[in-house]
Amino acid sequence: MKKWKRSARLVEMTHYLLSRPHVLVPLTLFAERYGSAKSTISEDLAIIKEVFEEEGFGDLQTLAGAAGGVKYVPKIPKRDALTILREIRTQLESPDRVLPGGYLYMSDILGQPHIVGEIGKMFASAFSDKPLDVVMTVETKGIPLAYATAVQLHLPVVIVRRDNRVTEGSSVSINYVSGSSKRIQTMTLGRRALKEQSNVLIIDDFMRAGGTIQGMIDLLREFDATVQGVGVFVESGEVEEHLIEDYVSIAKLSGIDPKTKQFSLLPGNYFNESEET
Amino acid sequence: MKKWKRSARLVEMTHYLLSRPHVLVPLTLFAERYGSAKSTISEDLAIIKEVFEEEGFGDLQTLAGAAGGVKYVPKIPKRDALTILREIRTQLESPDRVLPGGYLYMSDILGQPHIVGEIGKMFASAFSDKPLDVVMTVETKGIPLAYATAVQLHLPVVIVRRDNRVTEGSSVSINYVSGSSKRIQTMTLGRRALKEQSNVLIIDDFMRAGGTIQGMIDLLREFDATVQGVGVFVESGEVEEHLIEDYVSIAKLSGIDPKTKQFSLLPGNYFNESEET
Repeated sequence: MKKWKRSARLVEMTHYLLSRPHVLVPLTLFAERYGSAKSTISEDLAIIKEVFEEEGFGDLQTLAGAAGGVKYVPKIPKRDALTILREIRTQLESPDRVLPGGYLYMSDILGQPHIVGEIGKMFASAFSDKPLDVVMTVETKGIPLAYATAVQLHLPVVIVRRDNRVTEGSSVSINYVSGSSKRIQTMTLGRRALKEQSNVLIIDDFMRAGGTIQGMIDLLREFDATVQGVGVFVESGEVEEHLIEDYVSIAKLSGIDPKTKQFSLLPGNYFNESEET
Repeated sequence: MKKWKRSARLVEMTHYLLSRPHVLVPLTLFAERYGSAKSTISEDLAIIKEVFEEEGFGDLQTLAGAAGGVKYVPKIPKRDALTILREIRTQLESPDRVLPGGYLYMSDILGQPHIVGEIGKMFASAFSDKPLDVVMTVETKGIPLAYATAVQLHLPVVIVRRDNRVTEGSSVSINYVSGSSKRIQTMTLGRRALKEQSNVLIIDDFMRAGGTIQGMIDLLREFDATVQGVGVFVESGEVEEHLIEDYVSIAKLSGIDPKTKQFSLLPGNYFNESEET
């Protein structure tokens, strides 16, 4: 059997834990993997824990006992989240982003896996204590954010379609009114895509009045599911009253002026919560 | 300044490199970050390199000289890729996956970020030597795969739409014939989504005759772009002649029988290449 030095073990364990967020790893697994005593593994983990927590990668939670082990819970410190938001704002300052109709062009922002990954960490931090079975979104722009969040929470993703694809089998459809277009639209989810009574985290890129998210909540009722949380990247600050009361937003967009091409992007309610790191 | 021990440095550097694939990191950056001599940093990197390469995480490439540094190039060993493919096949063995019309239900497979991430590593391994500016896909099911690939290659993602959304600004549309439906369809890409003369990697979830991918190639011609590679998760083995000659497939699906619910999923041409690890 290969003899592992501490230095090599630390590199391998760091990779192992980072690749498996929210997975409880028994200490015996590490002990067998490296041919080391559990006490040695505990010392390694103490080193890793200190770096992870001091550098803001997240928590390394240790559970004692027979069913115990170690679990990496990714968390992003609020100061790092604000840095990402500032980076996004800087990119948004480039000219000609305000499109006819008062839309703000942001597809390139959500096309950067680095930024999407950091937003996923923010949602994962915000909802890390909820009992969750699945992350749900509706096509198209919410999809990368849903995956980035699900990766950090070790959950599967379910995508609601705006059409009814033959490759999904039998499905449930509902009608909803999108706040943006005021038109009646349809959304569809395959029967087999979601187990009954699942605990669901809804993620989307943009929320105006909340019609699309209300649609997803209505759809989830057909599956006897429980909505444990709603996370949106950008909420509109132009809306008097949201259909949804309880949600987490990363940024708040308002004051889009198609003439002057000005707008304001402020931190969302994600940053309101009490600061723990 | 904080005094870093080697053990803590190794944990932090491992995290740093894993979070920044395909980014050249100057040794001076590490030297300053940890208050260490460059020779010490080089020793640390030798330890990390050995573990990364022995455990199959990828290469740690060192470039000497003033503009030099270290770059993490993720690669997945073929044996690990085959293990993932076997895991997918095991999941596909559950009953009732063959839908009316001879479609195979695979949305739940692509709903697992772990599997999607590993497929992304396979594509990143296959195309790691190509000069690339961007990863492109068409909505909807290719999106997670495109992001998983782009993350590993440190590239942005561009999503071709099947509609023409007002939030994209001026755009280019083309018509194409999808092999699956035989209908004329439209795909659209915003003018500002892709710089002229970009080097593009096309990623999609499924290829029958290749009509959709040919559509993307035609669309890219309007942007003076160069297609540097095409990667599909599953190709259909039922097609006599593909419209596309040069592509990488992870799996090959054939023999779907709607009556017996049988099918065959074999390794794709990704596994044909010469084995280097």
